Amino acid sequence: MSVIDELVTNAERYAECYPNGWLPPEPRLRLAIVTCMDARLDVWRVLGLEEGDAHVIRNAGGVVTADTRRSLAISQRLLDTTEIMLIHHTDCGSTKITEDAFRECVYRDTGIRPDWAAEAFPKNADLDVVQSIARIRADELIPHRERVRGFVWEVKTGRLRPVSR
Amino acid sequence: MSVIDELVTNAERYAECYPNGWLPPEPRLRLAIVTCMDARLDVWRVLGLEEGDAHVIRNAGGVVTADTRRSLAISQRLLDTTEIMLIHHTDCGSTKITEDAFRECVYRDTGIRPDWAAEAFPKNADLDVVQSIARIRADELIPHRERVRGFVWEVKTGRLRPVSR
Repeated sequence: MSVIDELVTNAERYAECYPNGWLPPEPRLRLAIVTCMDARLDVWRVLGLEEGDAHVIRNAGGVVTADTRRSLAISQRLLDTTEIMLIHHTDCGSTKITEDAFRECVYRDTGIRPDWAAEAFPKNADLDVVQSIARIRADELIPHRERVRGFVWEVKTGRLRPVSR
Repeated sequence: MSVIDELVTNAERYAECYPNGWLPPEPRLRLAIVTCMDARLDVWRVLGLEEGDAHVIRNAGGVVTADTRRSLAISQRLLDTTEIMLIHHTDCGSTKITEDAFRECVYRDTGIRPDWAAEAFPKNADLDVVQSIARIRADELIPHRERVRGFVWEVKTGRLRPVSR
């Protein structure tokens, strides 16, 4: 039995007590959250989210890529969100690599260099939160760009720290 | 007080009882999950995930874009995951639009056409799960492409349904 089979069994238990079939697709808090795929960060539990509250967009690093901007544009244009919360975290894989080292490693393994940036931010997560917010602010296809706030979640303590701009 | 301030207060309560500072960055189940940003789908709760279990990648539609493939490549190459679980859902915003209508709407509003696809899948979510798996299988930069399984989560019932390939 693969781990996926176990999770499917868990999902059957979840469905037995599921009361939320009536919720609308539009997030109740009119909020989209952008954060890292990291396995230690259960952002719903950290932020006390309930089903229906907020869009949650996650990728390696919690960075603002073209796909993040696509998701934010759809979130705001089709599903009425107006605020954005951006959360990076400490001990992130993205702080432990450089673009050059990652590309070289993939090239050695496959004979192909990625045609995308790994989106490494070797210095620190705070600085990358600031430039990620700048990426959102620069995208005219995202209608609501005023209420964007940035945070770093500390893996060691579980605390969420605001990043000052 | 904005909704974000409320969530920050929730996060303070979470940190007070946080016991997981010792978890490694590598997901315990060696699994990456790709799913939609939808606010009704708390994938940790549905699948019974604990902190540290799995990477969670989310975007509008739960589609496999270049950024999804970047995240999967980093997940497998740097953080040792080997399996992928792909979850679309019913009543998804992406099933209610067409590329043409979305582009026209953005163009009318901003004078700019997006240089990305909205990734609409108007017919049904099952078919898009199948082609999303095909996108993963076609990407040689993702080392482990054999154990990829697709599902559709039903918003009305809370049930997770496997998609046969």
